[in-house]
Amino acid sequence: MDLEAPLKVLAFDVFGTVVDWYDSVARAVDALRLGVPGGAFALAWRAGYPLAMDRVRRGELGWTKIDDLHRMILDDVLRQFQVRGLGEAAIAHLNHVWHRLDPWPDAVPAITRLRRKFIVCTLSNGNLGLQVELSKHAGLNWDLILSAESFHHYKPDRETYLGVCEIFDIPPSAMMLVAAHKSDLQAAIACGCRGAFVQRPLEYGPGGLDALPPAIAAALRTATLADDALAVRASDLNDLADQLGCPA
Amino acid sequence: MDLEAPLKVLAFDVFGTVVDWYDSVARAVDALRLGVPGGAFALAWRAGYPLAMDRVRRGELGWTKIDDLHRMILDDVLRQFQVRGLGEAAIAHLNHVWHRLDPWPDAVPAITRLRRKFIVCTLSNGNLGLQVELSKHAGLNWDLILSAESFHHYKPDRETYLGVCEIFDIPPSAMMLVAAHKSDLQAAIACGCRGAFVQRPLEYGPGGLDALPPAIAAALRTATLADDALAVRASDLNDLADQLGCPA
Repeated sequence: MDLEAPLKVLAFDVFGTVVDWYDSVARAVDALRLGVPGGAFALAWRAGYPLAMDRVRRGELGWTKIDDLHRMILDDVLRQFQVRGLGEAAIAHLNHVWHRLDPWPDAVPAITRLRRKFIVCTLSNGNLGLQVELSKHAGLNWDLILSAESFHHYKPDRETYLGVCEIFDIPPSAMMLVAAHKSDLQAAIACGCRGAFVQRPLEYGPGGLDALPPAIAAALRTATLADDALAVRASDLNDLADQLGCPA
Repeated sequence: MDLEAPLKVLAFDVFGTVVDWYDSVARAVDALRLGVPGGAFALAWRAGYPLAMDRVRRGELGWTKIDDLHRMILDDVLRQFQVRGLGEAAIAHLNHVWHRLDPWPDAVPAITRLRRKFIVCTLSNGNLGLQVELSKHAGLNWDLILSAESFHHYKPDRETYLGVCEIFDIPPSAMMLVAAHKSDLQAAIACGCRGAFVQRPLEYGPGGLDALPPAIAAALRTATLADDALAVRASDLNDLADQLGCPA
């Protein structure tokens, strides 16, 4: 058994865990002065995301990058909010707002600290090109950027977590997933990886999950994870770095 | 036609172009005091590398990472040099000397300069885990690490160069391959990418190509590339940054 393998690799979820998609998307929509509330628009866009990935996971859609899934959802949300008159270039630019999300304030310093002791990579459903532009925008430096695109499987498919371990030639217990989402952590832990839960109470904006459509909120709430299944519970990424013994 | 696409992505060959494998491997072998000349050992090891990759490219071997190809060649070279008595742990450690190569002195500052203006990624036949450890060792930071492993094709297969363009959703002419090897550049240019040749006169040690077995040296010499096929010829990576208008 590999229960005792020393921790070598931290793999980070990105949207919500490292960057604040709600506020960044809401501000970009508000700036367009479309007469729609940016926050509600951001939540509707994000709510379409797990459904779109599930269509790929079920094989109903062939392999499709998040950039393209985001665009399919955006076209729906624009119709839903009855937005008319945005030209193709403006829609394409808005779709790439996910390449320009701002980091939570603790992310850049904490990741710098963690990289001194561990290999720190991403494991995001965001495509590689998106993550590269996002990281440049946010000033984030990683040891490696990995994506669902690297494995042609979206999280929470086990091929993603185990794919990280294969790349580094390590047993699952030498990898820790860092995420603000219990469903992601649950799937990684089921593969034998360690899990670090990071609290992001503002991920869905000031209204929290209650601001989402009830069915989506309920789906996000179903992931329950016993506290003792987690290796770490952290209030933010600096707290994670503290708990993992990384000097400030 | 996309001849005029602005340059967006620089993709770097790594072994020989960014890091000095000859000197790093030779010193590691000399330090083991095996009674074999480190430089000749390094050249013999490297000489096995294109042949091993060609076995994968022809389908004679299934997909095999460079770490594993390096080990197959190392076992041969140890026999060839009649080295006996190295234990498994020492052989495994020596095999990972390719994770601990030193950069050419211009590499770290020049790549920092280039990243301010362009997306700068690797495109190496070295596997992802190898490149991550090598980059941490050498102090190299990339916007993205890409590998033959990302595409399950070794360079000079066109799937590698075109795979980079697909990740960034750019036409081939918006990508420039940076390499010290004309065969690599020739293949990238045949795909419509731009090519930057970087001189590394010491790549094969003080003896140059003449120190290699004649058949290997001849194979390396066959790649000819008209000067006007190259977008840039540079004496080192700082010269490349100068020519591409990146402030020091």
